[in-house]
Amino acid sequence: MQTVMSAEDLMAFLVVEFDQVANDFVVEEVGEGKIRVRLVVDDRHLRPGGTVSGPSMFALADVAAYLATLALVGPKALAVTTNCSIDFMRKPAAGVDLVAHATVLKLGKLLSVTDVLIHSHGMDAPVARATLTYAIPQK
Amino acid sequence: MQTVMSAEDLMAFLVVEFDQVANDFVVEEVGEGKIRVRLVVDDRHLRPGGTVSGPSMFALADVAAYLATLALVGPKALAVTTNCSIDFMRKPAAGVDLVAHATVLKLGKLLSVTDVLIHSHGMDAPVARATLTYAIPQK
Amino acid sequence: MQTVMSAEDLMAFLVVEFDQVANDFVVEEVGEGKIRVRLVVDDRHLRPGGTVSGPSMFALADVAAYLATLALVGPKALAVTTNCSIDFMRKPAAGVDLVAHATVLKLGKLLSVTDVLIHSHGMDAPVARATLTYAIPQK
Amino acid sequence: MQTVMSAEDLMAFLVVEFDQVANDFVVEEVGEGKIRVRLVVDDRHLRPGGTVSGPSMFALADVAAYLATLALVGPKALAVTTNCSIDFMRKPAAGVDLVAHATVLKLGKLLSVTDVLIHSHGMDAPVARATLTYAIPQK
Repeated sequence: MQTVMSAEDLMAFLVVEFDQVANDFVVEEVGEGKIRVRLVVDDRHLRPGGTVSGPSMFALADVAAYLATLALVGPKALAVTTNCSIDFMRKPAAGVDLVAHATVLKLGKLLSVTDVLIHSHGMDAPVARATLTYAIPQK
Repeated sequence: MQTVMSAEDLMAFLVVEFDQVANDFVVEEVGEGKIRVRLVVDDRHLRPGGTVSGPSMFALADVAAYLATLALVGPKALAVTTNCSIDFMRKPAAGVDLVAHATVLKLGKLLSVTDVLIHSHGMDAPVARATLTYAIPQK
Repeated sequence: MQTVMSAEDLMAFLVVEFDQVANDFVVEEVGEGKIRVRLVVDDRHLRPGGTVSGPSMFALADVAAYLATLALVGPKALAVTTNCSIDFMRKPAAGVDLVAHATVLKLGKLLSVTDVLIHSHGMDAPVARATLTYAIPQK
Repeated sequence: MQTVMSAEDLMAFLVVEFDQVANDFVVEEVGEGKIRVRLVVDDRHLRPGGTVSGPSMFALADVAAYLATLALVGPKALAVTTNCSIDFMRKPAAGVDLVAHATVLKLGKLLSVTDVLIHSHGMDAPVARATLTYAIPQK
């Protein structure tokens, strides 16, 4: 799988198309079908007790899988998530950014399937895993 | 399945435990293992084009399933989502609230399983469906 | 959603295309986007203790969702399951057939999404629920 | 994560507890929270055209995740699958065994979560992926 967008391209795309959330995320690394994205944790991502909320983890998984797909197919703002399964496995560490590693398992003409593993920054045990399917817009 | 919390009880619980998001949601109806929750759509829930974002739909599904479970087991702030599968089926209508109907399919000692169907208010075809599992805290 | 295949049409299709499993299933009723399919439980579906195995429940969910989709789009042997999420909620009753109620939630050009609820025949509480996505073959 | 059952232990367990399916599977390797299981493909696993059926792939994912969990917690026949999400990504090669690599992502007191990747033997691109949750029986 060949990458056609760099980390900088993907960040620029996010800022143009999803400016409301672009500040939340940093694309840290892009490889062949792989990407690393960080959620810069802020008060609005937290639940009482200081752990990151489920919807914020979902948002990180969703962005990471989306950008991993776009890195391979180019900027298509209209790609849409059709399915996600997500397992919340451990409480995220309080006050620590989350890091998602996404791996594209399938890139078809119509659909992509991407696995995502999420860790609290610097911790070994994953806090969540997700798999997302995107429908790739047809010409 | 017998309900032990009313719509008012659930709203009061949300305000105390999840004040950051309590304003987003209205518990409209509570029945035996069933609940209806509305997402009061605001700018921060939207994607460019005016449709509700995936993470906002996830958040609605998560809250609806959580409250449907709490309505049966009583206020337990520590119940945690362990798994969610969600299918995004149609674009939500622009500028319209979303309404979730949640149904508890299983209430065990350790786990509950809840189905959620989400519609744009007033529309027949669902925009998303989800199933969520909660781990119920043990004494 | 308009039905284009009857219960008899669907059974005849199963016999021609999937003769290895056709004897396991009975299509009991077909409505608008809805279908009821029975798994005729046999020794090979059982686990020690006499309950139906997980793979047999998966097979029933898969067939029911597939036939619910075909009832709407006509006989397309090449439709393929792309995703399934399934929750096993209760032990099936021993020595009792399983009955699946499938409901098509979305019928798009490329994908269908179908919910399935499975009961032990005659019991109120569901033993499993599943959601399946099918890719509909393009001409 | 420390392994308490070897490949031989797991095969012996399968033969005793699940003799109906034990011949279908070979435990090829067991590591720390990891396992490799082969489905010895036979006529009864096939669909017309010679590819392995969805239920057979589900059965392989289910066995692999189950044995990966048991390898860590010891022989507990009563552990039950509570949830599975599975993505079917490519057609398996005809007449070729399937190989599953399972990785335990979480081993809690009540639940384990395991990722499974399935390949046609000798092929690089995975045919399916799955995540399964098991409820571990309490004393």
